[in-house]
Amino acid sequence: MDERSAQHRWERRTQQPLMGLAVVFAAAYAVPIIWPDASQAVTEACEVVEWVVWGAFSLDYLVRLVLTERRGEFVRTHWLDLCAVLLPLIQPLRLLRVVATVLLVGQRARMATQIRLTTYVAGAVVALMMFGSLAVLSVERESPDGNIKSMGDAVWWSFTTMTTVGYGDHAPTTGLGRMIAVGLMLSGIALLGVVTANIAAWFIARFESDDVEERRQTAAIEALAEEVRALRAQVAALSDSSGKVPEKSRT
Amino acid sequence: MDERSAQHRWERRTQQPLMGLAVVFAAAYAVPIIWPDASQAVTEACEVVEWVVWGAFSLDYLVRLVLTERRGEFVRTHWLDLCAVLLPLIQPLRLLRVVATVLLVGQRARMATQIRLTTYVAGAVVALMMFGSLAVLSVERESPDGNIKSMGDAVWWSFTTMTTVGYGDHAPTTGLGRMIAVGLMLSGIALLGVVTANIAAWFIARFESDDVEERRQTAAIEALAEEVRALRAQVAALSDSSGKVPEKSRT
Amino acid sequence: MDERSAQHRWERRTQQPLMGLAVVFAAAYAVPIIWPDASQAVTEACEVVEWVVWGAFSLDYLVRLVLTERRGEFVRTHWLDLCAVLLPLIQPLRLLRVVATVLLVGQRARMATQIRLTTYVAGAVVALMMFGSLAVLSVERESPDGNIKSMGDAVWWSFTTMTTVGYGDHAPTTGLGRMIAVGLMLSGIALLGVVTANIAAWFIARFESDDVEERRQTAAIEALAEEVRALRAQVAALSDSSGKVPEKSRT
Amino acid sequence: MDERSAQHRWERRTQQPLMGLAVVFAAAYAVPIIWPDASQAVTEACEVVEWVVWGAFSLDYLVRLVLTERRGEFVRTHWLDLCAVLLPLIQPLRLLRVVATVLLVGQRARMATQIRLTTYVAGAVVALMMFGSLAVLSVERESPDGNIKSMGDAVWWSFTTMTTVGYGDHAPTTGLGRMIAVGLMLSGIALLGVVTANIAAWFIARFESDDVEERRQTAAIEALAEEVRALRAQVAALSDSSGKVPEKSRT
Repeated sequence: MDERSAQHRWERRTQQPLMGLAVVFAAAYAVPIIWPDASQAVTEACEVVEWVVWGAFSLDYLVRLVLTERRGEFVRTHWLDLCAVLLPLIQPLRLLRVVATVLLVGQRARMATQIRLTTYVAGAVVALMMFGSLAVLSVERESPDGNIKSMGDAVWWSFTTMTTVGYGDHAPTTGLGRMIAVGLMLSGIALLGVVTANIAAWFIARFESDDVEERRQTAAIEALAEEVRALRAQVAALSDSSGKVPEKSRT
Repeated sequence: MDERSAQHRWERRTQQPLMGLAVVFAAAYAVPIIWPDASQAVTEACEVVEWVVWGAFSLDYLVRLVLTERRGEFVRTHWLDLCAVLLPLIQPLRLLRVVATVLLVGQRARMATQIRLTTYVAGAVVALMMFGSLAVLSVERESPDGNIKSMGDAVWWSFTTMTTVGYGDHAPTTGLGRMIAVGLMLSGIALLGVVTANIAAWFIARFESDDVEERRQTAAIEALAEEVRALRAQVAALSDSSGKVPEKSRT
Repeated sequence: MDERSAQHRWERRTQQPLMGLAVVFAAAYAVPIIWPDASQAVTEACEVVEWVVWGAFSLDYLVRLVLTERRGEFVRTHWLDLCAVLLPLIQPLRLLRVVATVLLVGQRARMATQIRLTTYVAGAVVALMMFGSLAVLSVERESPDGNIKSMGDAVWWSFTTMTTVGYGDHAPTTGLGRMIAVGLMLSGIALLGVVTANIAAWFIARFESDDVEERRQTAAIEALAEEVRALRAQVAALSDSSGKVPEKSRT
Repeated sequence: MDERSAQHRWERRTQQPLMGLAVVFAAAYAVPIIWPDASQAVTEACEVVEWVVWGAFSLDYLVRLVLTERRGEFVRTHWLDLCAVLLPLIQPLRLLRVVATVLLVGQRARMATQIRLTTYVAGAVVALMMFGSLAVLSVERESPDGNIKSMGDAVWWSFTTMTTVGYGDHAPTTGLGRMIAVGLMLSGIALLGVVTANIAAWFIARFESDDVEERRQTAAIEALAEEVRALRAQVAALSDSSGKVPEKSRT
C-alpha cells in the first residue's frame, strides 16, 4: 500500500517536468527537418537533446518499476514501454527514437488521471499529426519522385490523410513514408470514431434522460414504500393498543 | 433576475433582425467574388455593408454585456465573441471580417433556444460550405497554379471535401486556401459524426423500448406491491377483529 | 375508420404490381443509356414505358388521395409525392422524370410496413447507385472533357463516391453530373451512418444485457418480495392463532 | 443431444489444425504472385497445396453435415459454405478458389466460440487486406494501363482503400481488379463502423455507469427493504408477546 503510494507520488511529481521535456523533444526533432541548412553543431545538439529526453523517460520507467509493488505485473502491463526503452539501444535510427519517445510520452500522459479523455485524444491527434508531417517530410524530401518537399505540403498532406479526404495531390512514394502514412490513416479512423462516439453518447444521454420506463419504476417503488410505511403505522398502533410489545424492538 | 430577463428579452427581440442582417452580409460578401468585374462603387458598397453588419453584431454583444448581471462571467464564457468583435479592428482584412461575423452569427444562433439542434447543425454546415466556397474561390483565383477558378468549381470542391470523398480534381494550392480547406474538413468530420450519432440514437431508442430486463423489473415491483396490499388488508382485518386499533392510524 | 382501411387495403394490394413496374422502369431507363446505338423505335418504346410507369404511380397517388379520410393532412404529409407527380408535367426532361419516379417508388416502398428498415436502406442504396451511374453516364458521355465514358466506369465511379473513397480517376466534369454526384455523396454519408449505427446499436444491446446495476436491482426486489412473503406468513399465523380473522379477508 | 455434442467436439478438435492450414493456404497463394519468376514446379506445388486446403475445408463441411442432427437446417443456415465447396468444382479459376477458401475459413473462425468478436473482426480485416492486395496485384500486373505493379504498391493501395482515404495515385483499371476493390471498400466501411461502434459502446457504458436515476432506484429499494425488515421485527415481537404463534411459521 505504501509502496504503491510511493509510485503514485513519483508519477504525480514528475508529470509536469516530463511533459515539458516532451515539448523540448518535439522542438529538437523539428529543427533539423524544418531547417535543413542548419550547421553541423545545431544538428548534433538536437540529437543529444533527443537522446537526453529519451533517457529521462527511460529512467522514469525504471524508477516506477523499482517503486512498484508487483514488478512482474508492472512489466507485463507496460511491455510497450519496455520495448520503447530498449528499441533505440538496439537500432539507433532517428525514426525509431521518435517512435519510442512518442510511445513513452503517450503512455505517461494516459496514466495522468487529471487529464481527461478528450484532452488526451486531442493531444494525441495533434502530436501524431505534427510528428507524422515531420517524419514524412524528412523521408520524402530525399526521394527523387517525391512530391512532399516543404513543411507546408507535409502538414497539408497529413490533414487530408487524417480526415480521410485524401485528395492525392500530395502522397508519399517511399516505403518508409507510406508506413508513416498508414499510421496516420489508422489514427484518422480512430479520431473519426472518437468524434462520432462522443456526439452519439451525448445524444443518447439526452434521449435517455426522458426515459419514461425508468421514471415509472421509481414512481412505483416510491408508491410501494408509502404503502409499507402506512402498514407499519397500523402495526405499531395495533401493538401499542394491545400494550404487550417490548419497547426495544421498535425502530 | 430582472436584469437577466432584460438580457433575455433583448436576445429574443433582436433574433430575427440580426438573422436578416446575416443574410445581407452573405450577399455583400458573395457579390464581389462571384461578379469580379463589378464596378468600384459596387465593391465599395459591399464593403460598407460588411462593416455595418459586423458593427451591428458587435453592438449586440456590447448591449448584452451591459444588460447581463454577471459581467465577468459573461466575458469569460463569451471570449470567442469578444475576439470576433476585436479582430477586424486590429487587422481589417476581408477574410478576418468574414470569420468574425460568421462566429458572431453562429454564437447568436446557438443561443436562440427555439432553434433545434438539427436545424442549427444543418444551417452551420450550409453556411460553412457557402463561405468556404467563396473564400477559397477568392483566394485561389489569383494563384497561378490554382485549379479553382469558377464558383461552380468552388462549390463542387467544397462538397467533395466536406463529405471526405476528396477526388482531388480540384484542390487548393495556396496556404490560405488550404487553411480554409482544413476548416471545411473538420466540419465535414463533425457533420459525419452528427449524422451517424442521430441515426444511432434513434436506433438505440428503438432497441431499448423493448428492453426485457426493465419490463421484468416493473412487473416484479408491481407483483410486490400487490403482495403488500394484500398484507395490509389482512392486518386491517386482524386489528378490526381485535377491536382495539385507534381509527386515526388507518389510512 | 372504414375509409382509412380502404386506403390501407389498396396500398397492400397494389404493393407488388407497383414494385414490378419499378423494375420495368429501371430497365426502360437503362436500355437507351447502355445501348446508345439502339434504333429510334427502341428509344421511343422506352420513353413510352417511362411515361406509363410514372403515370401508374401518379394514379396510385390520386387513388390514395381519394380513399383517404383526411385529404388536407394527406396532401401536407405527402407534398414530396405531389411534386413528383407534377414535375414531369411542367418540365418533361428525362432526368426529372427519373427523379420523380424514384421518389414515388421510394415513398411507396417506405410505407410498406412488411419491408424492414435494413431492407429499405439496402434497396435505396442499390437503386440510387444504379440510377446515379446511369444518369452520370448519360450526362458525361456527351461532355468533351468527361472521363466517364462506359457503364463500367460509371458503376466504378459511383462505388468510389458512395463509400467516400474518391480516388478521382473518374469524376464528373459537367454541372448536371456534379449535382448527381452530390446526391450520391450525401447518400453515401447516410449509408455510413446507418451501417455504423446498426453495429453500434447491436454492440450496446450486448453491453447492456450484462448490465450489473440492473441485475442488482432485480435481485434486490426479489429479496424484498421474499421478505414480504415471510411477513405475510407470520401475520397469517398470528391471526390464525388469535382465531378472530374473518376468512374472506385472506387471499 | 449426443450427435450435436459429437459435431461440437469435432469442431473444437479440428479448430487449430484447420487454422494452421489457412496459413499454409495464404502462403501458397502469395508465393506465385510475389515471386512471378518462380519455376514451374513451385507454381504447380502451390496450386496443389491450394486444392488440398480447399479439400480439407470441404471435408470438414461434409463431416459436420454428417455429424449434425438436423441436416436440413444445417444446409439452410450454411448455404454460403455449400456454395464455397461447390464453386471451385464448377469453375476452377484461381480467384474463385481463393474466395471459396476465405469464405470457408471465415465461417469456421466465426463459429469458434472462444474467439472474441474484436479478434474476429481484426483477423478478417487483415486477411481481406492481404488477399485483396495479392489478388489485385495478380490481376493488375498484366493490364497494360495498370499502375499497381509491385507488392508494395498493392498493399499501399489496399490501405488507402480500406481507410476510405483514396488518394488515387494507384487504382485498379481492370473490371476484375475493380470488383476486388469494391469488396475492400465495403469491408472498409464495415471496419469504420466497428471501430466507431466499439468506442461509442464504451463511452456510453461509462456514461451510464454514473446514471443518477438507476442509483436512486437501488437506494429507494434498499430503504424500502430496511423498512420491511423493521416491520417484521415489530410483528415478530407482537406475536412473541402474545405467545400464540406456532414456531414453524417463523423464518
